Amino acid sequence: MSKIPSIVRFLPILNWGSRYNKDTFTEDGVAAIVVAIILIPQSLAYALLAGMPAETGLYASIFGLTIYTLFGTSNTLSVAPVAVISLMTAVALDRLSLGSEGEYIAAAVILAFTSGLVLMIFGFLRLGFMANFLSHPVISAFITASALIIGLSQVQHFLGVEVSGTNIIELSTALMLSVSKTNLVTLTLGIGALLLIIWSKRALGKGLIALGLKPHIATIFSKSGPLLVAFITSCLTYFLSLDQQDVQILGYVEGGLPTIHPPKFSPELIESLLGSAILISIIAFVESVSVAQSLAARRRESIELNQELIGLGAANLGASFGGGFPIAGGFSRSVVNFEAGAATPASGLIAALLIMIVTLFFAPILYWLPKVCLAAIIVVAVYSLIDFSVLKRSWIYSKADFTAVFLTLIITLTVGVEAGIAAGVGSSILIHLYKTSQPHIAVIGRVKGTEHFRNVNRHKVETFEELLSIRIDESLYFANSRYLEEFIFNLVAQRPKLQHVILMCTAVNKIDLSALESLEKIANTLHVADIKLHLSEVKGPIMDKLAATDFFNHLSGNNYLSHNQAVEDLRKSEPLYSEPKTHL
Amino acid sequence: MSKIPSIVRFLPILNWGSRYNKDTFTEDGVAAIVVAIILIPQSLAYALLAGMPAETGLYASIFGLTIYTLFGTSNTLSVAPVAVISLMTAVALDRLSLGSEGEYIAAAVILAFTSGLVLMIFGFLRLGFMANFLSHPVISAFITASALIIGLSQVQHFLGVEVSGTNIIELSTALMLSVSKTNLVTLTLGIGALLLIIWSKRALGKGLIALGLKPHIATIFSKSGPLLVAFITSCLTYFLSLDQQDVQILGYVEGGLPTIHPPKFSPELIESLLGSAILISIIAFVESVSVAQSLAARRRESIELNQELIGLGAANLGASFGGGFPIAGGFSRSVVNFEAGAATPASGLIAALLIMIVTLFFAPILYWLPKVCLAAIIVVAVYSLIDFSVLKRSWIYSKADFTAVFLTLIITLTVGVEAGIAAGVGSSILIHLYKTSQPHIAVIGRVKGTEHFRNVNRHKVETFEELLSIRIDESLYFANSRYLEEFIFNLVAQRPKLQHVILMCTAVNKIDLSALESLEKIANTLHVADIKLHLSEVKGPIMDKLAATDFFNHLSGNNYLSHNQAVEDLRKSEPLYSEPKTHL
Repeated sequence: MSKIPSIVRFLPILNWGSRYNKDTFTEDGVAAIVVAIILIPQSLAYALLAGMPAETGLYASIFGLTIYTLFGTSNTLSVAPVAVISLMTAVALDRLSLGSEGEYIAAAVILAFTSGLVLMIFGFLRLGFMANFLSHPVISAFITASALIIGLSQVQHFLGVEVSGTNIIELSTALMLSVSKTNLVTLTLGIGALLLIIWSKRALGKGLIALGLKPHIATIFSKSGPLLVAFITSCLTYFLSLDQQDVQILGYVEGGLPTIHPPKFSPELIESLLGSAILISIIAFVESVSVAQSLAARRRESIELNQELIGLGAANLGASFGGGFPIAGGFSRSVVNFEAGAATPASGLIAALLIMIVTLFFAPILYWLPKVCLAAIIVVAVYSLIDFSVLKRSWIYSKADFTAVFLTLIITLTVGVEAGIAAGVGSSILIHLYKTSQPHIAVIGRVKGTEHFRNVNRHKVETFEELLSIRIDESLYFANSRYLEEFIFNLVAQRPKLQHVILMCTAVNKIDLSALESLEKIANTLHVADIKLHLSEVKGPIMDKLAATDFFNHLSGNNYLSHNQAVEDLRKSEPLYSEPKTHL
Repeated sequence: MSKIPSIVRFLPILNWGSRYNKDTFTEDGVAAIVVAIILIPQSLAYALLAGMPAETGLYASIFGLTIYTLFGTSNTLSVAPVAVISLMTAVALDRLSLGSEGEYIAAAVILAFTSGLVLMIFGFLRLGFMANFLSHPVISAFITASALIIGLSQVQHFLGVEVSGTNIIELSTALMLSVSKTNLVTLTLGIGALLLIIWSKRALGKGLIALGLKPHIATIFSKSGPLLVAFITSCLTYFLSLDQQDVQILGYVEGGLPTIHPPKFSPELIESLLGSAILISIIAFVESVSVAQSLAARRRESIELNQELIGLGAANLGASFGGGFPIAGGFSRSVVNFEAGAATPASGLIAALLIMIVTLFFAPILYWLPKVCLAAIIVVAVYSLIDFSVLKRSWIYSKADFTAVFLTLIITLTVGVEAGIAAGVGSSILIHLYKTSQPHIAVIGRVKGTEHFRNVNRHKVETFEELLSIRIDESLYFANSRYLEEFIFNLVAQRPKLQHVILMCTAVNKIDLSALESLEKIANTLHVADIKLHLSEVKGPIMDKLAATDFFNHLSGNNYLSHNQAVEDLRKSEPLYSEPKTHL
């Protein structure tokens, strides 16, 4: 990997681009058509979810897909608006209580810019490992809770009312108060659209194949369900003049090509959005690499995590320069892109061109598209994200994991997405530190007639009143070093005749500075109490580190190569020793 | 330990109180006199540091010492105002920008109450282990930086000016602007007091012993330096009417016994102080148990961490009911108490009685005490807390530890105490997770003619193109499970002929749910790529956990007891295998 020139690592297109040919173009082209068909209605719908004008969703897709083609390492990841990130965008911007729509749009652009910058900085600092702090179970709980919030937030469009709220409590209260104002025409249209989308998703593809269509072509048609339903509901609205019956329509959608212009910088705005941008970056990254990695591995390809940070970051910067909002790699779209046969990232570029053509020529006909149709598209898309099985799995497997999952789910639902992520990351780390903060430490004794030492609670061994042998079964670091102190001081308090403590360090792979200071404190304190501290069987690398400090000046006792030799030496030095005591 | 009735664990006084006799009373009494002599000027000085009226320091001492006697497990810990916690109190209250002195005092009382509550809740939930998150090196860096801020904050009293600031940048800027207004009389008095305290600390005890006084009595006199200097400077101020020369004096100090009254509850105030209260609780706890533990171990006694949380919490609740501010176990005072021979926590109760008598009868004579004398007492007390050696030690020992130490020091100094603690805890945890997020994983091959498998990069071993053997040298959990995925997927991408991956799990002690899901994802993804995943040498407890899930349904391969058996079986099943390749 390190032999690849760094310019190629930074611009993977130089690598696959040089091998590009007609075959790969055909494969990419077919996949791009399917992706564009899915992405056009999704872009409009997620723009709505993010609280943005419909066309900005198209702009975000065009710029995101294009820029990712240059910098991304995944051949199939489709970087454009996604549901959860759009929800997070709406939540972040709602909190600012911006006055006008113009300010709201400007803030969304700044949010995409800041998220992109955070992702790129993480990439250049090679901080891809930070994604590890969001564990798999926590992220599934978070996605499930977010999908529920998104689903509930769409109910207003079905009822034809307007409510606000960023968690299920606020949303359900607001909906309850508005349910009496339900617009029945909107509701009928919405339920019709919903059923039609579900039907096209479940049955259309199979039906077409049964009718003799090639699977290839049938797939394209079955994926076009949302686009088809958008067309049908638009026609209905136009011909029946449903807007006169208070059915909310999309209205004027800005056509033509988006202009490229840098966002209007405002340090205060960047500062107030930075926290949200970091959370958006983390979720965008974790979700994107998770799908990119499993798709790549299926074809024995690989992706490079830190370059993915740069690719996603550049895509978000691109979206912001095009007037869009934060984006990420979408799960279902990428799978479709993969299954339709996308061979290189160029598939994304071709899809971007197709969407650009639609934006250029067909924007005016979106005027009659009812908002409830987009709500139906969102509901179907997020339904597949809901997965409560993680609760049961974690409950069975480990109560500690369950706690983190449950907290994430409940806090996301009842407080909001940002608090939910924080709770997930925080509880995972706390639980992990708690588990490792009590390392396994055993008092050991000698198996009679041998040189082996074993746990006194499990084996028949002999011990001496003047001599305490302790085996530490874990690396020592700040989170468990105080436990060691407490453990030893408590044992010493129970043994009035004690003269020597020997720590057997066979399983200690690392000792950080905190643990070193704990060992010094233990040595000094025992020294005052007339007890010597010895070490045995310390590993080579640790010996080197300890020797570089003044630790051995603090150590009142010795350092032995073998634990048995330590016990024998110390017994010889003190002829008044009591007889060995046999345990168990 | 578990045989002790829980009421005795909760009220340790029932344990040692039943054995109390005349001898222990004499020992406690002598120690109590020494502690009271130190604590009276300290209480006044730290009240000043916390921005509180002088008498509230005395109240906090009286109530803190008394209540800790009932609940504490340390025989020598002296729980009363301490420098760092007083600074943190001032910082927390300054931020609220309270209008009147009355509001400020009420808020300090609420802060003590909230801190006490937090400590008690931590104790009842047995969260003593949380103290582990503040590593030894980080806490020394924090204490050093706090001591510097405290020292600098006292310079205003020497100059006789008034400045404000909570970090060294703010303080030094403000001092620079005020230095021209220096009151030379105050400065002279202050430097005189400072030199006298240092002299009494360094030379008085030895001098008195040289003059023939018993060491016992000499110690008491040498510790009374600050009290003596307070008396001398008060007399000077009174007789020379220095207050006419603008020397700031303490003024009217409320005498008589403090009244016990619950703090005025205000939910908003508690909410806005909660963050600070949690930080104060953590620092108070870590500092207190650190000194209590080492003093106890010197006499082969032990303390109980969770009961200490309850004891400190109760002491803070007591301080708040007495109108005081947050308190903790002080380092130097507790050492003096220990060395003067305190035998039981009753020493604290006796000291409280002595301070009460002083408060009752001598408060009026504090009128003439110059504030600069208290500043001198503070400067001498915090000077001993400054210790930069941790920078050098950590630099030599480990750059990762150094990073955490350096960040804590710099951020505490330049931003403030609360940001400093957050930086210390945050960076320690991040660095630790980073270190463990890349577990040691080795591709292994067979040592020819044996059944042993070793790292291909270090030993001469044979491998097969169709078969990848991997040894994992660490427990698997959320922070390193994605690394495993990436590691395996990258290896697979480089091996077109690969058919089997075998994970050797000898060193895997734990697998959390995230890691389990990673293993499932690896198994499923490899399955799609026509590669089977096998495990070998899985430990018993982990097998039990895995068997409780549906993991083995995901595993396309088998689970082998020995790695060699796995390799042999898989070679037999596939006669077309290539010849072994020898490495190194």
